[in-house]
Amino acid sequence: MATTTNGINGHHPNGVHTAASSKDFSSFKVNQSRLMDHIHDGCQFGAAWKYGDDPTETGMARLALNDADKAVRQWFTTKAESMGCTVTVDEMGNQFAVRQGKNASAPPVMMGSHLDADSNAPQTQPTGGRYDGILGVNAGLEVLRVLEDNKYVSEGNIGVVNWTNEEGARFPMMAVSSGVWAGAVSLEKAWNLAEVSAGEDGNKKTMKQELERIGYLGPVKCDHSENPFAAHFELHIEQGPILEAEKRRVGVVKGVQAFKWFEIEVSGRDTHAGTTPFYARKDSMLCAAKMIVESNRIAKAAGGLATTGILTQEPGSINTMAHTVHFTLDIRHVEDAVLETIRKECETAFAKIAKDDSEAGCKVEWKELVDSPAVKFHEDCIKAVEEAAEEVCSDLPKTATDGGSLWKHMISGAGHDSCYTNRRCPTSMIFAVTKDGISHNPVEYCSPEDCAVGTQVLLGAVLRFDKRRKF
Amino acid sequence: MATTTNGINGHHPNGVHTAASSKDFSSFKVNQSRLMDHIHDGCQFGAAWKYGDDPTETGMARLALNDADKAVRQWFTTKAESMGCTVTVDEMGNQFAVRQGKNASAPPVMMGSHLDADSNAPQTQPTGGRYDGILGVNAGLEVLRVLEDNKYVSEGNIGVVNWTNEEGARFPMMAVSSGVWAGAVSLEKAWNLAEVSAGEDGNKKTMKQELERIGYLGPVKCDHSENPFAAHFELHIEQGPILEAEKRRVGVVKGVQAFKWFEIEVSGRDTHAGTTPFYARKDSMLCAAKMIVESNRIAKAAGGLATTGILTQEPGSINTMAHTVHFTLDIRHVEDAVLETIRKECETAFAKIAKDDSEAGCKVEWKELVDSPAVKFHEDCIKAVEEAAEEVCSDLPKTATDGGSLWKHMISGAGHDSCYTNRRCPTSMIFAVTKDGISHNPVEYCSPEDCAVGTQVLLGAVLRFDKRRKF
Repeated sequence: MATTTNGINGHHPNGVHTAASSKDFSSFKVNQSRLMDHIHDGCQFGAAWKYGDDPTETGMARLALNDADKAVRQWFTTKAESMGCTVTVDEMGNQFAVRQGKNASAPPVMMGSHLDADSNAPQTQPTGGRYDGILGVNAGLEVLRVLEDNKYVSEGNIGVVNWTNEEGARFPMMAVSSGVWAGAVSLEKAWNLAEVSAGEDGNKKTMKQELERIGYLGPVKCDHSENPFAAHFELHIEQGPILEAEKRRVGVVKGVQAFKWFEIEVSGRDTHAGTTPFYARKDSMLCAAKMIVESNRIAKAAGGLATTGILTQEPGSINTMAHTVHFTLDIRHVEDAVLETIRKECETAFAKIAKDDSEAGCKVEWKELVDSPAVKFHEDCIKAVEEAAEEVCSDLPKTATDGGSLWKHMISGAGHDSCYTNRRCPTSMIFAVTKDGISHNPVEYCSPEDCAVGTQVLLGAVLRFDKRRKF
Repeated sequence: MATTTNGINGHHPNGVHTAASSKDFSSFKVNQSRLMDHIHDGCQFGAAWKYGDDPTETGMARLALNDADKAVRQWFTTKAESMGCTVTVDEMGNQFAVRQGKNASAPPVMMGSHLDADSNAPQTQPTGGRYDGILGVNAGLEVLRVLEDNKYVSEGNIGVVNWTNEEGARFPMMAVSSGVWAGAVSLEKAWNLAEVSAGEDGNKKTMKQELERIGYLGPVKCDHSENPFAAHFELHIEQGPILEAEKRRVGVVKGVQAFKWFEIEVSGRDTHAGTTPFYARKDSMLCAAKMIVESNRIAKAAGGLATTGILTQEPGSINTMAHTVHFTLDIRHVEDAVLETIRKECETAFAKIAKDDSEAGCKVEWKELVDSPAVKFHEDCIKAVEEAAEEVCSDLPKTATDGGSLWKHMISGAGHDSCYTNRRCPTSMIFAVTKDGISHNPVEYCSPEDCAVGTQVLLGAVLRFDKRRKF
């Protein structure tokens, strides 16, 4: 529509921005009701699992690259283009909506998260909520709207990215598309990922097939060097109970804890529950139960976490011992070195349980499924978030149970796209309060006030980072 | 063919028996190779799960009332009739092969077990061996053969019974047909039992449908008062490791331990494994693991047994706590009162674990699935088995690790048809050595020597009991 001396190109519908370019952004306010309207408007695509009377009281079943995901992608493009953004799509279907600033040729500062919404584990019935991922993308769009409202011209380009298949529920690799962008996952491997459950035609389709089917196999290389960012900021629900319990409002996320996933196999013998005295038993279930209890004790003592979410047995009969039990072990710690200590202590403890503490003895074998080292976010990004959080929180009621600050340094317990972007550009995250710590569930909830507070911090952080950029 | 002064009726093919009626049966010897030939001949029907090169090195997949079971039933009838037995079939398909003695109108002494051969738990792939049940029926037939060889005329009738669906693998109720005979299970309920897995036509057939299909819905009432026994003796593999470990040869079974089956439900909350600190967790898997460990400790301290063979969880995701875990608990003890104490102690312990020892707390609920009180077999039957065992063992090498007797008083850990017959007639059981204590498995094994020793004890016990009968 118009060009400006600041390099805003012809795609921008709202004309010349110079009037706002010198504005102090400290007066910019996120529009809470507009933000929520957009969140729920986008959730019309894939809404499922109604749990209350209000139309917004549903969860989401929006698996990556399904028809609902296709629809919300078009919705995202329309919303972004209506603000004059340029929207591009890369080979993994990642969508990049960029609003130009003065130095239009430099890499943009991106606000990213994901619009696929479901549990990040393969399930018969994938269930997700309206905030995990969705809040982050919508917060980014709201920030751009506030810039538009104020005709603000940023130093560099600022944009929003919607990463494909972050959850990994349909195509079983978490954050696979930011992984390809960061060079951590090969394009070939990602494209060939087959969906977990076959579709109605009985075939398991690959990511590439589904990207083509919904028209989102884009022309842009999925590569950080060909499509670089100046920075990546992600607002996300905490997915834990800490902020709520301490009555704080914002998490300033300094990194992501290290985690490892294992599958443990315990082999015993399938003898009869009534005829086999204890001394002759190789009870793999009892052995596994002792290991689970012990892994919890070890992790707790080390200040880490341990969780067993899946346990299966064969043959699975009430009055026959299982000859084989498999269970998963998810261990986490902020420090890689301590995580390794937890793993080693579990290994020693499990071997001892199998040998000495399970009657006639069982065998135990470990298989590593995932090794995700600790992530330390970028100091500049963390600082920008801290300053923004401090400013936003200074206007809020002092609710913290300890009387202290309303924002808190945190370490993310879960993985996010930001773990991958952090490898290639300055990155950090902001956490918003999560009701009861529940995510990956239809009742997942972040109040409108907390959605707005998080978005306001995102705005402040991004504009601070932008102001300090050197070109 | 001929009648005798002793009341042998016309069905007897071998003519007059008076010549043998006064014989001392202490010289009667079971024919080991003939016994084994018949065992393996009958196992041609339903042989499966080959594990070695020898043709007899397979397990069995002979689910009750399937075509293989139909075939072995005809085989049983042919073998019994060839010895002059009268074979009748009752409403549950139970087969009764009776060889007449002097007092032909009095109830017979029966030797019973079952020819269905598979695991006694519903499984995708039911696996059984060649001895559980099969040995007992074949031992009975071999005893009758020895009586024929010796033209022996017993005081009363002596026979063999093949009980239908003892395992409960296809129609999910163990020993259902002896249960109907004993009046413990209604005929209606038994007939209406639906098979666990649907057949090729997609329908789950009932026991009555399958009895009709294979032609074994017989005319005799399935009722202990209309079809009474003088006694019931059952030779069975031990299904445990005790005789083998102590290098003894025979178990004189005085009863069956009490057992109860429960399904325990532990409810927690499905929160994220990385974002939920321990204090906020309601980890139903950890809670269940602690309960399994504790039930083992309690049962061990009380001299009983506790086993968890099945554990399932929802949703079943590596990095999400299970919101619900179900696990089975099988507890056993020789005494009903002690079993009840074990149950109560588990109940108290589980409640404490759920409330105090699982962070933010879980809920626990119990559902009783089976309550099988302790069984005490009949003194007269036990005495007859003891005497026979003493006689048989006196001729065997003294192998017992403690230098003591080769036979041992035992309590059965598993349920058998004899538990039901014991309610209606004097009953006891004999145990034969089981290799590695393994049953319900293709490699289940009892050596030819031990099959013969057990059969010899059965013969001695039955003829002793018969001799002492009052008419």
